[in-house]
Amino acid sequence: MTDNATDKASSPTPVTLLGTGAMGTALARAWLAAGHPVTVWNRTPARAEALAVEGATVAASADAAVAANRLVVACLLDDDSLGEALATADLGGRDLVNLTTGTPGEGRARAAWAEARGARFVDGGIMAVPPMIGSPDSGAFVFYSGSAALFEEHRDVLAVPAGTAYVGADAGFAALHDVALLSAMYGMFGGIAHAFALIRREDIAPEDFAPLLVSWLTAMAPAALESAGKLESGDYTRDVVSNLAMQVAGIPTFLRTADEQGVRPDMVRPYLDLMRRRLESGPHADEDTTGVIDLLTAT
Amino acid sequence: MTDNATDKASSPTPVTLLGTGAMGTALARAWLAAGHPVTVWNRTPARAEALAVEGATVAASADAAVAANRLVVACLLDDDSLGEALATADLGGRDLVNLTTGTPGEGRARAAWAEARGARFVDGGIMAVPPMIGSPDSGAFVFYSGSAALFEEHRDVLAVPAGTAYVGADAGFAALHDVALLSAMYGMFGGIAHAFALIRREDIAPEDFAPLLVSWLTAMAPAALESAGKLESGDYTRDVVSNLAMQVAGIPTFLRTADEQGVRPDMVRPYLDLMRRRLESGPHADEDTTGVIDLLTAT
Repeated sequence: MTDNATDKASSPTPVTLLGTGAMGTALARAWLAAGHPVTVWNRTPARAEALAVEGATVAASADAAVAANRLVVACLLDDDSLGEALATADLGGRDLVNLTTGTPGEGRARAAWAEARGARFVDGGIMAVPPMIGSPDSGAFVFYSGSAALFEEHRDVLAVPAGTAYVGADAGFAALHDVALLSAMYGMFGGIAHAFALIRREDIAPEDFAPLLVSWLTAMAPAALESAGKLESGDYTRDVVSNLAMQVAGIPTFLRTADEQGVRPDMVRPYLDLMRRRLESGPHADEDTTGVIDLLTAT
Repeated sequence: MTDNATDKASSPTPVTLLGTGAMGTALARAWLAAGHPVTVWNRTPARAEALAVEGATVAASADAAVAANRLVVACLLDDDSLGEALATADLGGRDLVNLTTGTPGEGRARAAWAEARGARFVDGGIMAVPPMIGSPDSGAFVFYSGSAALFEEHRDVLAVPAGTAYVGADAGFAALHDVALLSAMYGMFGGIAHAFALIRREDIAPEDFAPLLVSWLTAMAPAALESAGKLESGDYTRDVVSNLAMQVAGIPTFLRTADEQGVRPDMVRPYLDLMRRRLESGPHADEDTTGVIDLLTAT
């Protein structure tokens, strides 16, 4: 009995995977490589069948795929695709892990929908591109939120393709963290694009300039930690090293430089405008820039 | 003679400093602390006199300050202030180091102006706030460009208050590097502000969220190195891990999430729009996002 129990505990959990696009295929391969039996389903069967030669079982329907295993992972095009795929599936007693990209609101609605059908549910937000999946050193990770019980029971299985970060019982929090981090990245990419555009017509090699840019952004990113402390305390003037009045005074130099270099200021002007509006909206000269966040959420 | 020559070589170079605002005062203190004789001048004398008790000599006029030493460092409000301060000074044989904030064009024009008056000239762009000056571990540094001979002769003196990075003979390059890096930082800050705004009304502590944000931005900043390689080769499709078509497909999720969370999308929409415009402007689906830079410099 003990040996049998041990065997059961150590035999890899079987996984059903709905959706075998680039990301789904990468997930399936990671589980297959780790010895997990994998049942796959895809709306267009050809891509699922490509995984059969690698050891996956191809289900004839989404209903059959869901029936095959208790742990069901979905990685589809969007939330509508998920609703269609699972329209007639019996989710009773299933553990549904939704890695389909969506909004926090979609994650919350889908959690209620799944629970009403007798399933436990977690939503996930994948912080990686497919080539990073299954490589422990790639830095790939997935935000999870929703049922803590589901997450705890399956965390080792979920950790096979990428690192895991559970961020709360609210099923919307995984998507919220995912979108927030990617949004911040696009802001940074906008700044990087502006910087490259500024040097573009000069005799400055992008490959000489880029390391300076990376070092500087890496050194400045921890400003987010300062802002977090200020948001929690509500005091935006504490330990300010460069105050808003000084930073706003520098704005004309930024805009004139863009003009001199023939670069549209679209990537930097919105933030510079926001700093100026914050300064003009009250006695905020001695704050840092944290107060601009208030303007983004003002109704 | 040998001893005397050695003494001369090792005695700290005297420095004239024009402008004793917060940054000028920090510079003066760093040189005084390292044993350099410092002559200061400020349009409003009171702030210069505060440095007298710390060992500085206060000059009665900018002309007298310039006459006192060969190495003259200016750190004034703006380029106009520099022109006014030096209107009647004899710059013949002087080494003028301009740390006044300005545009690349102002740096170039000021270099020609100084050289026509018999001075050597370098322009500088300070990548630091005053409290970082004079602390070797603070990461503070100054971009310098212009006369390589001036920079080489005085690099040890210039290295006293902050690290040095010489970026070329073009006197506009120091300001260009300075503005480019700060602009990229403001882009990143815009992204960070958006991310904090997204989580603001949720039960997510900013101090729990911020370290995730810093790690993610630090991991993603090296994308600038990839873009540099693509800009140099002109091939934006080489080694692409997340193509433009896929990234544009994600845009609705970003905008709907901002809408759900009650956040104005002003900080991220310009870059998302630029990605979409790049995708729609030609056969760019298999590129990464480097091509958006072309749209910023298009005439």
